[in-house]
Amino acid sequence: MLKATVYVTIKQNVLDVQGSAVQGALHSMGFDEVGSVRIGKYLELQLNTADRSEAEARVKAMCEKLLANTVIEDYKYELQAV
Amino acid sequence: MLKATVYVTIKQNVLDVQGSAVQGALHSMGFDEVGSVRIGKYLELQLNTADRSEAEARVKAMCEKLLANTVIEDYKYELQAV
Repeated sequence: MLKATVYVTIKQNVLDVQGSAVQGALHSMGFDEVGSVRIGKYLELQLNTADRSEAEARVKAMCEKLLANTVIEDYKYELQAV
Repeated sequence: MLKATVYVTIKQNVLDVQGSAVQGALHSMGFDEVGSVRIGKYLELQLNTADRSEAEARVKAMCEKLLANTVIEDYKYELQAV
């Protein structure tokens, strides 16, 4: 069994409206030291396979096809044995 | 300047409906090796301060008050100098 941890983030040059809203909320709560806020997704997937190199390719395909919108989002992932 | 990276995840004993939906979608796309899928949030905050111990306490307060719903979500965070 492998565990894949996937991080999906909005590309640097794309406006992060959710992040801007959270930044505004934090400022209004008195957290004035907060500069930019970027919000992404964090996914943990259990994979019923032990073949790490095959799993790498499969997770990459999942990200490209479903988990990330590669027009506006970047992704990275890590695999670890569990 | 510090960068805080915050991970907000749904507690293990709480049903992750978004994760279940993604799991179903991955299965229907032929990724049958996927077991459980858990989806959380990943936040990057720029902090205009250099005091790490103060920043720790402030980020904890931000998580408790706004970034995480501590009834159903866990959070963890890391600070790094930028």
